[in-house]
Amino acid sequence: MIKVGIVGGTGYTGVELLRLLAAHPEVELTAITSRKEDGMPVADMFPSLRGRVSLAFSAPDKAKLDECDVVFFATPHGVAMSQARELLAKGVKVIDLAADFRIKDAGTFEKWYGMPHSCLDLLEEAVYGLPEVNREAIRKARLIGLPGCYPTSMQLGFAPLLAQGRPLVNEANLIADCKSGVSGAGRKAEVHTLLAEASDNFKAYGVKGHRHLPETTQGLEAIAGRKIGLTFVPHLVPMIRGIHSTLYAQILPEARETDFQALYERHYEGERFVDVMPPGSHPETRSVRASNQLRIAVHRPGGGDLLVILVVEDNLVKGAAGQGVQCMNIMFGLDESAGLMQIPVLP
Amino acid sequence: MIKVGIVGGTGYTGVELLRLLAAHPEVELTAITSRKEDGMPVADMFPSLRGRVSLAFSAPDKAKLDECDVVFFATPHGVAMSQARELLAKGVKVIDLAADFRIKDAGTFEKWYGMPHSCLDLLEEAVYGLPEVNREAIRKARLIGLPGCYPTSMQLGFAPLLAQGRPLVNEANLIADCKSGVSGAGRKAEVHTLLAEASDNFKAYGVKGHRHLPETTQGLEAIAGRKIGLTFVPHLVPMIRGIHSTLYAQILPEARETDFQALYERHYEGERFVDVMPPGSHPETRSVRASNQLRIAVHRPGGGDLLVILVVEDNLVKGAAGQGVQCMNIMFGLDESAGLMQIPVLP
Amino acid sequence: MIKVGIVGGTGYTGVELLRLLAAHPEVELTAITSRKEDGMPVADMFPSLRGRVSLAFSAPDKAKLDECDVVFFATPHGVAMSQARELLAKGVKVIDLAADFRIKDAGTFEKWYGMPHSCLDLLEEAVYGLPEVNREAIRKARLIGLPGCYPTSMQLGFAPLLAQGRPLVNEANLIADCKSGVSGAGRKAEVHTLLAEASDNFKAYGVKGHRHLPETTQGLEAIAGRKIGLTFVPHLVPMIRGIHSTLYAQILPEARETDFQALYERHYEGERFVDVMPPGSHPETRSVRASNQLRIAVHRPGGGDLLVILVVEDNLVKGAAGQGVQCMNIMFGLDESAGLMQIPVLP
Amino acid sequence: MIKVGIVGGTGYTGVELLRLLAAHPEVELTAITSRKEDGMPVADMFPSLRGRVSLAFSAPDKAKLDECDVVFFATPHGVAMSQARELLAKGVKVIDLAADFRIKDAGTFEKWYGMPHSCLDLLEEAVYGLPEVNREAIRKARLIGLPGCYPTSMQLGFAPLLAQGRPLVNEANLIADCKSGVSGAGRKAEVHTLLAEASDNFKAYGVKGHRHLPETTQGLEAIAGRKIGLTFVPHLVPMIRGIHSTLYAQILPEARETDFQALYERHYEGERFVDVMPPGSHPETRSVRASNQLRIAVHRPGGGDLLVILVVEDNLVKGAAGQGVQCMNIMFGLDESAGLMQIPVLP
Repeated sequence: MIKVGIVGGTGYTGVELLRLLAAHPEVELTAITSRKEDGMPVADMFPSLRGRVSLAFSAPDKAKLDECDVVFFATPHGVAMSQARELLAKGVKVIDLAADFRIKDAGTFEKWYGMPHSCLDLLEEAVYGLPEVNREAIRKARLIGLPGCYPTSMQLGFAPLLAQGRPLVNEANLIADCKSGVSGAGRKAEVHTLLAEASDNFKAYGVKGHRHLPETTQGLEAIAGRKIGLTFVPHLVPMIRGIHSTLYAQILPEARETDFQALYERHYEGERFVDVMPPGSHPETRSVRASNQLRIAVHRPGGGDLLVILVVEDNLVKGAAGQGVQCMNIMFGLDESAGLMQIPVLP
Repeated sequence: MIKVGIVGGTGYTGVELLRLLAAHPEVELTAITSRKEDGMPVADMFPSLRGRVSLAFSAPDKAKLDECDVVFFATPHGVAMSQARELLAKGVKVIDLAADFRIKDAGTFEKWYGMPHSCLDLLEEAVYGLPEVNREAIRKARLIGLPGCYPTSMQLGFAPLLAQGRPLVNEANLIADCKSGVSGAGRKAEVHTLLAEASDNFKAYGVKGHRHLPETTQGLEAIAGRKIGLTFVPHLVPMIRGIHSTLYAQILPEARETDFQALYERHYEGERFVDVMPPGSHPETRSVRASNQLRIAVHRPGGGDLLVILVVEDNLVKGAAGQGVQCMNIMFGLDESAGLMQIPVLP
Repeated sequence: MIKVGIVGGTGYTGVELLRLLAAHPEVELTAITSRKEDGMPVADMFPSLRGRVSLAFSAPDKAKLDECDVVFFATPHGVAMSQARELLAKGVKVIDLAADFRIKDAGTFEKWYGMPHSCLDLLEEAVYGLPEVNREAIRKARLIGLPGCYPTSMQLGFAPLLAQGRPLVNEANLIADCKSGVSGAGRKAEVHTLLAEASDNFKAYGVKGHRHLPETTQGLEAIAGRKIGLTFVPHLVPMIRGIHSTLYAQILPEARETDFQALYERHYEGERFVDVMPPGSHPETRSVRASNQLRIAVHRPGGGDLLVILVVEDNLVKGAAGQGVQCMNIMFGLDESAGLMQIPVLP
Repeated sequence: MIKVGIVGGTGYTGVELLRLLAAHPEVELTAITSRKEDGMPVADMFPSLRGRVSLAFSAPDKAKLDECDVVFFATPHGVAMSQARELLAKGVKVIDLAADFRIKDAGTFEKWYGMPHSCLDLLEEAVYGLPEVNREAIRKARLIGLPGCYPTSMQLGFAPLLAQGRPLVNEANLIADCKSGVSGAGRKAEVHTLLAEASDNFKAYGVKGHRHLPETTQGLEAIAGRKIGLTFVPHLVPMIRGIHSTLYAQILPEARETDFQALYERHYEGERFVDVMPPGSHPETRSVRASNQLRIAVHRPGGGDLLVILVVEDNLVKGAAGQGVQCMNIMFGLDESAGLMQIPVLP
């Protein structure tokens, strides 16, 4: 059994980690920290876990995280980078669900997250936890920076196009029109995500610039091995979970004959958690609700030169906690789908 | 034109007052205060008012409220009672949407609202602003304590039963099972009313005791002229606006022959904002959405001895701002429905 | 492995059975019938099952249901009673999710369901599939009539009160104010359950009388061994899954000293799927979402004589498919919780 | 007073017309037809109209539509073209909310709507009812084909870019990523728009091709006076009302210095129902809920060459019934905003 600790388990990615890990056949949950809730049984805060998780929150200093095999950070940005070094030094692997180890360029990190990076050597060592792109590196990693929820869907959606030797689409002009459920904003008391504000309503936000843009650009350029240009427009959907990314790419004249459906199917052949749907499909977010699945459909409306890629994922699972568990499975040599075979909840 | 000021217009009852008053044919909006938002155009906070309300928030001291004919308090409990005296002294009428002037017994107020009442003489003078019960007193009032949202639906729902000379139902055992949309909790940043918490979810709350219980009991006893006993269980509905109260009363053996449908229709004959629906109806909250209407249906399942009364209202209109405007109309001798003839928005 | 067939898998209870059974460690799904969709892969209709259920719908005559160990009927009322006899004759056990085998009195069945009962001997033999009440009979049963969704919550909510030797509450005057998500109405194309009709809306329905009333009355009388009187008012909540029942019972003078919290805890001690929450709790429907759990809280507001019992369940799991699997587990001597340990999905 | 008839008032555009027209100061509602509901008071179907609309549905033959000044068709496609000729011959003006008179090319109409056009001369005469583009033609029209809901938002969003003498953007490559509430699908009993299907869910649909594409292309080409190329991807949002269109256009090198914000403000100067918001705005659909307002924000993310235009409207008002009333006002020489000054309902 792998001994797992969680730092900061009071948010949505934290409770989702608990849901997944409590039912994971190879995991023993040994500690969950919250300075504020020290001593409170986790199931008092999240009654959905009554009878299933008997752990209580403990203050970080009492948590004995260094006796864990792996520690997940489900904390605000900036926490993991201040604690990772010590854990790694004791042989504990670290998986960060926040942004501390996502962006390789410290200047870019500081610009978008408003804090200097305090851990440059580890930043260099950290592996970007997107298994379908980075599986081998993850296998050997001690420290994982998990992708953001939007970046997961954009990267897996664009990857087959960009991973070819030569450009197939106008890579300077990629567009990602993304829509997310409200849980993506986290479990923070804020006015704009109140039900009375966000329900029966739809809006774009962050059009000027969003933190997930530099991360995604970095990821897409790594996949392509070339510079790319991306416009990313996020929108807020009046629902709890789910991301739907509608991706647009202009097909280059020399690539007009490409069978993009086949390209996508081939690219993701054998991937357990990426489902390339049949031509003409319109994936729905509920078709992956509460599961680690991501689904993709490839469209070319009117047979024209614009490719429209539809991607859905559950932002809390494949976009966060589930992807973390998937990385853990890889890091510890387990079956990659261990504890991740929940069937989506529909309706 | 009646000059109207609003103290504290950044919450839901405030913006609803603005929606109603900005279109009221006899009203001139002259001031709206918010210490925190001093100088900010109201329409910057609420873009729905762009092009319709040109007023900016102003700090209380600059607002010249004493030049108004009437001032609405859409503030947290405790504010109106600290400012009403001064305004009244200058001949300004006051309508409080909070609880400061609802409960006549200062001890009861203190017990439920956690603060002593600072204005006992005005408390005695204040008129409870429920027009269908208190119209004549409202006409002469300088100071109105508007009913809460739940209490409006419960009182208007039970009133015809209790207003008869002799008891028709077991008045010691009234039950009100009430359901409210989330806007009833106000525009405060809180976790439990986030969309990701309150959507696709249903729960009761405050079963132990809720502030609207003593207010409603006081109102029902005033209507009946007798002691009554009420159990009130509020629930949170994953919707924005609307209250649905399901009321239960045990018919007394001597009242079994009563035609309750006729009793209700007679009681509310001529009332513009109370609609007694035909027998067998199930009023929906959306049938009153964004309007000052309240609808009632009278049921006696299986022809038995339990009366089931269904009541719907929009908690922000008939349950708050609309009722305030209705009181204002009465106080100033206007047509009671002036500015209140919006047709409900369906779907 | 138990060979399982499903008749009529295109509705919500059908797809929920598939979600549960496809992940059940002791089950082999062998057939699912739909005359209309003969040949269509199940996962084409429900993409959530892509990669997890490879079965296609087949016409009833091709389905070889008689080779199954057990067949679930997730069909409209009236289907199971026309096919059960033949299956039972071949040694196949039958679990009906519709109402055909719920109500013991054929006249009552005909009155509420508008069709005569065609299978009176089997009706007598059929066992009411509520494990917490009927476990021993279920163990020996060949034919199960599963409780309706509302009746499950009402019966398990009232059971501890009624199961005592002497009456503790006024059993002639029980009230159940129940609220259900829209999936309870099934996957039928109807106007009143469209999102544009039922969303941001709340209403009661069927106040005159609802089919779940006679079933629940029968169940409660069986538990009490006495006549009872129940008023049942169902309401439609703008959410997908979940039932919240608010139950009211008048405590008898001689039972005033009873510790009802202790009574409930004792009654459900050892039950895996019934959680009696601590005093003062307000269970939320999402705390059981997508799981077989049912939670109960016991209140006595103001220390008075009215007991308020709050009950939540997922109408598609404990209120339907999950309860069916629970019964199957009992019938086949498996661990009662096999395949039913999904942790509720929150948020 | 203008005498108004409505053909087919049982859908969402019909009830919305009733809401607007019943409160219109210059209108007398004289007839509303429904063959199926002949004799049924409108308010029995839509209780929101109780006390406000006393009209009953009548069979078409009894409705005396020829005594009206104007008749609205809120009917399925194909009805208006079969009845318009007769009404026009009697001097009755006609406004069609369906698609019969939108698309000028009969072949295109037949291809997308699956029926031949039966009224080619009237098709030629019909005026496309988009006041901000076509006001003068509307003033003189006898017959109006009202724009679809999506086309209204796309055309008013792109118009300022295309209406200039020379191209500013790559007009061959316009993209419209549009999101609509479910009421856009109408009040038809269908599975995919049930609350239990469409709630807590998000998906694209009709990516292959949608009827609103040829209409919008025709409109944009009329505005530009040039050929344009448009990709249109509609999505379904789990909310009742509202359309949010996110429009993308590649700025041409020679137009890089353009002040697009100023361009939009100038273009819509003086328009009562089009609000160009300040730079940096993110319009929300609720900011126009239940009103005839449309709001636009102009973005140029990162100062790059891609223009992102955000447009919101209420699909049932500016996207349908409200636009119809606006046209009627113009046709009859009334104030264009008569009966259309409802302030948006927020929250």
